[in-house]
Amino acid sequence: KINGERLWDSLMEMSKIGPGVAGGNNRQTLTDEDGEGRALFQSWCEAAGCSMGLDQMGNMFARREGTDPDALPVYVGSHLDTQPTGGKYDGVLGVLGGLEILRTLNDLGIKTKHPIVVTNFTNEEGTRYAPAMLSSGVFAGIHTQDWAYDREDAEGKKFGDELKRIGWRGDEEVGARKMHAFFELHIEQGPILEAEGKDIGVVTHGQGLSWTQVTIEGKDSHTGSTPMPMRKNAGLGMARVLEKVDEIAWSHAPHAVGAAGHIDVYPNSRNVIPGKVVFTVDFRSPELSVIEDMEARLRVEGQTIADDMGLSIAFEKVGGFDPVTFDEGCVTAVRNAAERLGHTHLDIISGAGHDACWINRVAPTAMVMCPCVDGLSHNEAEEISPQWAAAGADVLFHAVVETAEI
Amino acid sequence: KINGERLWDSLMEMSKIGPGVAGGNNRQTLTDEDGEGRALFQSWCEAAGCSMGLDQMGNMFARREGTDPDALPVYVGSHLDTQPTGGKYDGVLGVLGGLEILRTLNDLGIKTKHPIVVTNFTNEEGTRYAPAMLSSGVFAGIHTQDWAYDREDAEGKKFGDELKRIGWRGDEEVGARKMHAFFELHIEQGPILEAEGKDIGVVTHGQGLSWTQVTIEGKDSHTGSTPMPMRKNAGLGMARVLEKVDEIAWSHAPHAVGAAGHIDVYPNSRNVIPGKVVFTVDFRSPELSVIEDMEARLRVEGQTIADDMGLSIAFEKVGGFDPVTFDEGCVTAVRNAAERLGHTHLDIISGAGHDACWINRVAPTAMVMCPCVDGLSHNEAEEISPQWAAAGADVLFHAVVETAEI
Ligand SMILES: NC(=O)NCCC(=O)O
Ligand SMILES: NC(=O)NCCC(=O)O
Repeated sequence: KINGERLWDSLMEMSKIGPGVAGGNNRQTLTDEDGEGRALFQSWCEAAGCSMGLDQMGNMFARREGTDPDALPVYVGSHLDTQPTGGKYDGVLGVLGGLEILRTLNDLGIKTKHPIVVTNFTNEEGTRYAPAMLSSGVFAGIHTQDWAYDREDAEGKKFGDELKRIGWRGDEEVGARKMHAFFELHIEQGPILEAEGKDIGVVTHGQGLSWTQVTIEGKDSHTGSTPMPMRKNAGLGMARVLEKVDEIAWSHAPHAVGAAGHIDVYPNSRNVIPGKVVFTVDFRSPELSVIEDMEARLRVEGQTIADDMGLSIAFEKVGGFDPVTFDEGCVTAVRNAAERLGHTHLDIISGAGHDACWINRVAPTAMVMCPCVDGLSHNEAEEISPQWAAAGADVLFHAVVETAEI
Repeated sequence: KINGERLWDSLMEMSKIGPGVAGGNNRQTLTDEDGEGRALFQSWCEAAGCSMGLDQMGNMFARREGTDPDALPVYVGSHLDTQPTGGKYDGVLGVLGGLEILRTLNDLGIKTKHPIVVTNFTNEEGTRYAPAMLSSGVFAGIHTQDWAYDREDAEGKKFGDELKRIGWRGDEEVGARKMHAFFELHIEQGPILEAEGKDIGVVTHGQGLSWTQVTIEGKDSHTGSTPMPMRKNAGLGMARVLEKVDEIAWSHAPHAVGAAGHIDVYPNSRNVIPGKVVFTVDFRSPELSVIEDMEARLRVEGQTIADDMGLSIAFEKVGGFDPVTFDEGCVTAVRNAAERLGHTHLDIISGAGHDACWINRVAPTAMVMCPCVDGLSHNEAEEISPQWAAAGADVLFHAVVETAEI
């Protein structure tokens, strides 16, 4: 069994870097705080006797050697970056849970045949730079590195430049590593495990996602002196599209969700009718055909709304991945570990995207989930109990060590 | 007649300060650019032989002496601040049109009985600091100066501090001046004069305005893993309220308008369901009862929308003024001037708010309007012709000089 207290202490220590405004964290990718968090993680890995690899996307790889020089490593990890108003566990639990495995193996003096490598993937959240899971995506060959380097944040700062600025752009070629398997521990971020009273989610599938950035253009004009019939109100057009997004998602419920989290209005002045709005629609479903249907309807019905109002509308896909089926062998290893440890468990579909979803393309992959209070995540109030964290890390430990072979 | 070429040159010269991104201006109140614009105006006033007064709200008063030491001055002016993506004429024409009167009187060697004072009122636009017409409002005793000093911009910077920072906080008590009359020349910012082919709008009334800031709170949560029925999507609540605002305004058309120009979404991340939105609803009408009805319906129907969705909603009035009836004597002076100069003219109601609306509370007041292309304002593409500007300034000149008596 892993040391639950040590894991919890490390989680609390990491959460001191980039504190939020309401008890959570703001440690967005490629900020100074991200750099500080990385340095802390590196110092812990070195103390645990690991060597650290760093690739050109800033992905970190802390390696504990195995006994067989020819055996491919088993990888385990997640991400240390957070939402702007994020929680203390989303991602962090998976990285520090991985580290805790190494510490426990050290304590017990256990050597594995396969090396074990703990990873921190850069920019999983996708807030500062769309899309989410950017660097695991480059690792898996989904995106090119040049394209990733050119992503811009809201201030026009490029990913590649910011990665260099914080000092975490490595030399290693991205995706050159071959993995024996990959495991990711993550909080559920949804309400199912808690509601069902289960300790562990055995993640068999992941929902697919589609991010469509919508730009509606009308005409900036005076809110007082422009007669109603002459208005081209891009903000009102957005309101109608948002209502339609909700309707489209509900039409597929419970097998789909949809909303817009990001909305920018221009020029954003109380007495100027919005001439332009840019917002991102997030549609998800475990079924690819449903995602495709929702995307298509957004474009068709959005166009109709805009046409009726004399507005222009443009759609750009800024992120997405197909629904994922995780590796049967790895999933079984997770389920068996939960069983062996006497934890109640449930097969579930991940509602969120994870680095594991991309790594699954290039290596046998599975995920372990633990519950979170009220299913709440992407909120500073995100909470889990030390017991839940320890149970999740124990299952991860057993699945990883079984796969890495003693 | 005034010198139309000189007026136009001055307009073009001023527009070089705080250039916009599309040919217009971004010279928002109490920015460095506002300070530069003021300095240029002051240098021109001094060159025209005026003394400059500056009050504690940063209102500027350039005085040309009259022949009767006991006669109250005739005031004329508007504002030099602009929208973030504003035009070159909104406000500026009224200030520089006033200056052009003084220059013309100097050219002609004419002395008036009453002094003439050209004013630049601080923060007319109300974008950086709500409400609009803040400093003419303090001048007219509508707001206290302390309250005005405490207004905060989006970054939390206070009005009083920023006024001091740019070096334009004077010593003079605000509102201590008594005015014989006040005249304001302004572009129409609406389509009526151009459509009717008239040179001059004789402004008899002004629409009233109500700004209600609406705050809707739901719960930040993950866009992927939060099931549809568990969502408390403040962004969707806003969409429904925006649709209602439009419906309410149309229900009173053509005697009312309504829209929201300012919208902020929190935390504004693609994969976080908005937990909070703040937006400002702008309702206007020439009839007070209509404004009151729209405001009341926004509160009642907004509350119903929020209740139905499990959201909280709060309403705060952040600006407003009642419909205005301008002074009959001053209005007649404007109409007679247009008639005398052979300009076609039309009695109109101002759709926008103006400093004249507040000054009307403390002095006999009227406004002169000139057309603008396509009725477009609060847009960098705002345009007028030099002929329109000259005609407006000529009418202003005659109305002011008649009132100031030769
Ligand atoms: N786990 C997580 O919150 N990842 C961010 C990508 C997503 O929005 O699903
Ligand atoms: N004239 C003008 O645009 N004033 C700003 C106040 C308003 O929104 O009416």
